[in-house]
Amino acid sequence: MTNILNGKDIKKMSLTELNALCESLRSEIINTVMNNGGHLSSNLGAIELTVALYYVFDFPTDKLIFDVGHQCYAHKLLSDRPAEFSTIRKKGGLSGFPKRDESEYDAYDTGHAGTSISAALGIAKARDIKGENFNVISIIGDGSFNNGLVYEAFNSLRPLNTNILVILNDNGMSISPTVGSMHEYLEHLSKDDKHRQKVEKHANIFERFGFLYDGVYDGNNLEVLIEKLTEIKEKLKNNSIILHVLTKKGKGYAFCEENPEKTHGVSGGSASPCATYSKVLGNTLCNLAKEDKRIVAVTAAMTPSLGLSEFFKNYPERSIDVGICEEHATILCAALATQGLKPYYAVYSTFLQRSFDEIIIDICSQHLPVTICLDRAGISGEDGETHQGVFDLSFLRLIPGLTIAVPKDVLEFENMLKASVNFNAPLVIRYPKESLSVFGDNTCDNFKFGKWEIIKGGDGEVAILACGERAIRLSLKVSSKLENFGVNVKIINARSVKPFDEEMLSALSEKLIITVEDNQLIGGFGDGICRYYSEQKDKIVKSFAYRDEFIEHGTVEELMGEYGVNADEIADYIIKKCG
Amino acid sequence: MTNILNGKDIKKMSLTELNALCESLRSEIINTVMNNGGHLSSNLGAIELTVALYYVFDFPTDKLIFDVGHQCYAHKLLSDRPAEFSTIRKKGGLSGFPKRDESEYDAYDTGHAGTSISAALGIAKARDIKGENFNVISIIGDGSFNNGLVYEAFNSLRPLNTNILVILNDNGMSISPTVGSMHEYLEHLSKDDKHRQKVEKHANIFERFGFLYDGVYDGNNLEVLIEKLTEIKEKLKNNSIILHVLTKKGKGYAFCEENPEKTHGVSGGSASPCATYSKVLGNTLCNLAKEDKRIVAVTAAMTPSLGLSEFFKNYPERSIDVGICEEHATILCAALATQGLKPYYAVYSTFLQRSFDEIIIDICSQHLPVTICLDRAGISGEDGETHQGVFDLSFLRLIPGLTIAVPKDVLEFENMLKASVNFNAPLVIRYPKESLSVFGDNTCDNFKFGKWEIIKGGDGEVAILACGERAIRLSLKVSSKLENFGVNVKIINARSVKPFDEEMLSALSEKLIITVEDNQLIGGFGDGICRYYSEQKDKIVKSFAYRDEFIEHGTVEELMGEYGVNADEIADYIIKKCG
Repeated sequence: MTNILNGKDIKKMSLTELNALCESLRSEIINTVMNNGGHLSSNLGAIELTVALYYVFDFPTDKLIFDVGHQCYAHKLLSDRPAEFSTIRKKGGLSGFPKRDESEYDAYDTGHAGTSISAALGIAKARDIKGENFNVISIIGDGSFNNGLVYEAFNSLRPLNTNILVILNDNGMSISPTVGSMHEYLEHLSKDDKHRQKVEKHANIFERFGFLYDGVYDGNNLEVLIEKLTEIKEKLKNNSIILHVLTKKGKGYAFCEENPEKTHGVSGGSASPCATYSKVLGNTLCNLAKEDKRIVAVTAAMTPSLGLSEFFKNYPERSIDVGICEEHATILCAALATQGLKPYYAVYSTFLQRSFDEIIIDICSQHLPVTICLDRAGISGEDGETHQGVFDLSFLRLIPGLTIAVPKDVLEFENMLKASVNFNAPLVIRYPKESLSVFGDNTCDNFKFGKWEIIKGGDGEVAILACGERAIRLSLKVSSKLENFGVNVKIINARSVKPFDEEMLSALSEKLIITVEDNQLIGGFGDGICRYYSEQKDKIVKSFAYRDEFIEHGTVEELMGEYGVNADEIADYIIKKCG
Repeated sequence: MTNILNGKDIKKMSLTELNALCESLRSEIINTVMNNGGHLSSNLGAIELTVALYYVFDFPTDKLIFDVGHQCYAHKLLSDRPAEFSTIRKKGGLSGFPKRDESEYDAYDTGHAGTSISAALGIAKARDIKGENFNVISIIGDGSFNNGLVYEAFNSLRPLNTNILVILNDNGMSISPTVGSMHEYLEHLSKDDKHRQKVEKHANIFERFGFLYDGVYDGNNLEVLIEKLTEIKEKLKNNSIILHVLTKKGKGYAFCEENPEKTHGVSGGSASPCATYSKVLGNTLCNLAKEDKRIVAVTAAMTPSLGLSEFFKNYPERSIDVGICEEHATILCAALATQGLKPYYAVYSTFLQRSFDEIIIDICSQHLPVTICLDRAGISGEDGETHQGVFDLSFLRLIPGLTIAVPKDVLEFENMLKASVNFNAPLVIRYPKESLSVFGDNTCDNFKFGKWEIIKGGDGEVAILACGERAIRLSLKVSSKLENFGVNVKIINARSVKPFDEEMLSALSEKLIITVEDNQLIGGFGDGICRYYSEQKDKIVKSFAYRDEFIEHGTVEELMGEYGVNADEIADYIIKKCG
């Protein structure tokens, strides 16, 4: 494929050849995603747009910034990486997102929503300061377009006094269908042509912010796209432009076109979990909400991935999807709680980073009983650096008044959810995507936050304090390995990361305390245990957590092993100390 | 004053009496702020508006939410706290911000910008779910109105299907004059009446989002305000409304009207610092920027408070104020750095919490040489819970690839700034507002990040590792106290919180290691040192940092003492261990 896909040749191609190129790209992307997993339908919809951009503009001199990056696969194939495309999302292979370290064609690293217009403005402003001359283009989907960063960037276009092109790739979808008034406005602009033209003359919203507005409402038509982009390129010297392009998510692959929600992200792995935490969240909340009218579910554009589709169907009046607006979602929850309701905010760990300030100020300083259901915590795998959920125990533990619970399995998760209903304080329950095991006793009907349990007794030499399913599974492996060496370990399910179970901690007689967590070492659970015993000179605390680096993409198992949380290392350490 | 100011009596007053009430409120506020410090000119501008709201609506049944809260003083006087108003911002007295714990009239705690519309939506939605009946009102200034949260909230108004009143109190100012296209649009709406009416009919931005738009362009006129609010109240049953009210910041106090930037915040204390870090930042950056054309300064609506007015005047083409948009500012800096520029982002510690995700993803995972100048770090005093800068060492330390420097005084700060110019990685320099002392050697021309220095030698029993000016001043006090007990301490200027100076740490012979920092204990500097020595059984690490609670308002000294960082406690501990 390498020859056809060389971006440098595109400019010499005829329209027929270009259309054939789109088809090659399409089948290459479908085949690769089916093997490796990845983002499918968003990438399929943007192929013609990407080819047209490569035909009209000059990359990497011109700069192309993909918001989030779920639409960058054709770009990766067209720039300098077609031969490596089959390695995408594999450890050591190409990233599924734009990466400056990977190619000079990737102008800016993305992964979280709404950053591309700010980044484009910064790059364009730098160009102006340095007196250089190139075009800067942001491609943003209508889902990301709901994020507050877009407004912040729009609002500073005039003060920055620079020129960029924003391409709004509007396929009507985030992962869920896009919600909100901006989306309605976009529909209105693209559907009612006469009205649109009148509006444009008078008060198009984007023109208010200093953009010229233009549209391609047939955005999978290469010829139209090329014509419009060529026309626009000329205007970019003296204007900023927003080009509204309507595309079809999943274009060219019937199953995707018909099922855009199901084919946004495709899983490449073959290992099938026994359950997922998100499914348990959905089922349990549905059951609890039958009895308890205070329960409200809040999401930020990821309802199905979080397991809440059924809840949203059954309790529409108590279901809120705010779009990709994690900060706003957090404040909404706090405000609902001031009125005696019981909000459950389900969100991926990596995206909760956006709510850090609001968890401190809105939820915790007001002591409000919001429950955050923190999904995809720990290493999330193939999405890489920008999507690992490895910081949350650290950034949450430092917040006063927050209880942090980490279930050992889905049954305990269910117990925690039941107990959360009458828990009258800020609460986070943290869990990974997959559930692979069920451990020990789960019959507890009256779960209490703040208490740990002993999963396996020991002989007084070593205690492992393990947080969450992955850590407990690992600890049991360690325990098996050590049996051969005559070392017997106690394993504790440290299911409350804040507060600690101080009663159990103070009673531990073991001299060697091992902590295991699926989180960054600095500031995490282990650091807290280390501090707890800091003045007790008879205890040694050794923590297994991720070392202080960004964690690339790969499988969960590969990455846990490589970054410092694996059974062999733990067992070796214990043997060295006790064997 | 208690009688006149009882909100319950307002509804019986004549217009003349109401105007007299406004004047009483005005003089009460001026007198109190002159004594206690506080937010002056923003509060003065909103007096008539607040009185009109109390006249027309029924609080606390109706809910009133002040964005940030710099306009809530008249509300505090009119509700249930006139007698305590003289205690505002004093330890144990009234808070300078709305606080639910303080009064049922305070519907939602605020302090950071842009949250009030989200909070109003949440409260209104809860009302609807519960089938209750009251009005929900957000008052937001045009400065906060630039924040992305406003757009996120606007965008979800229709999906939430509820009704609120948003009062946009437009005085043309944040702390600095308000910037951006939204502000231009607001000016345009209020000034060009004919055009406005035409726009309103066609495509007023707010109506696009589902609000009715109305305006009072003479917003210090009580009669007009009352008339308009009465009219609007009726419509609120079936509509959400945005009422655009033009007010005069500093109204009624000539000096404030003429100097709104200087009188936004008034300092109550009499202790005058020998210098401020912000002044040193401004002077040093101005000097460096003469030689180095790569230097760009970025702020989020606080240019003067951060010491950068002169820089903005001298280098307008390299100065960016984005308005109250901390996230956008962070991404802009990252993007500028991708092009080889050298951005300095100056910001208060508490507001940097908003940029947490962008520091991780945009700056650090891309390894970009952005320098964050982190002002008002540590306890900031009278503004209380929402403004203390006590979490930053913890939430920054957990981010891979970030260097964190804490100067011991303004001279070292200057050296750090000079060294930062050629430091090619993400960097935070953290400092409090005031500088009171200069310590030890500052002649170093070639400052190196990552290295500590010994401020005072000891005798081998105790070493104090102190972070920053306040901690070092405290440590010297401790040292003096201990001299009487024959205990000699070594004091180390631990000016690099990340990375540690491991060479110095590994060479320390003292058995007792004390850490002192102006930061939350959990995850902070001390926790890192505790971890460093965790496997060395001959060392005891004891940390003095703030205990795990929200820190109320009071003076810096009062609060440091009460929350766990004071010379007496430290000295007592050391005497107990060594004496």
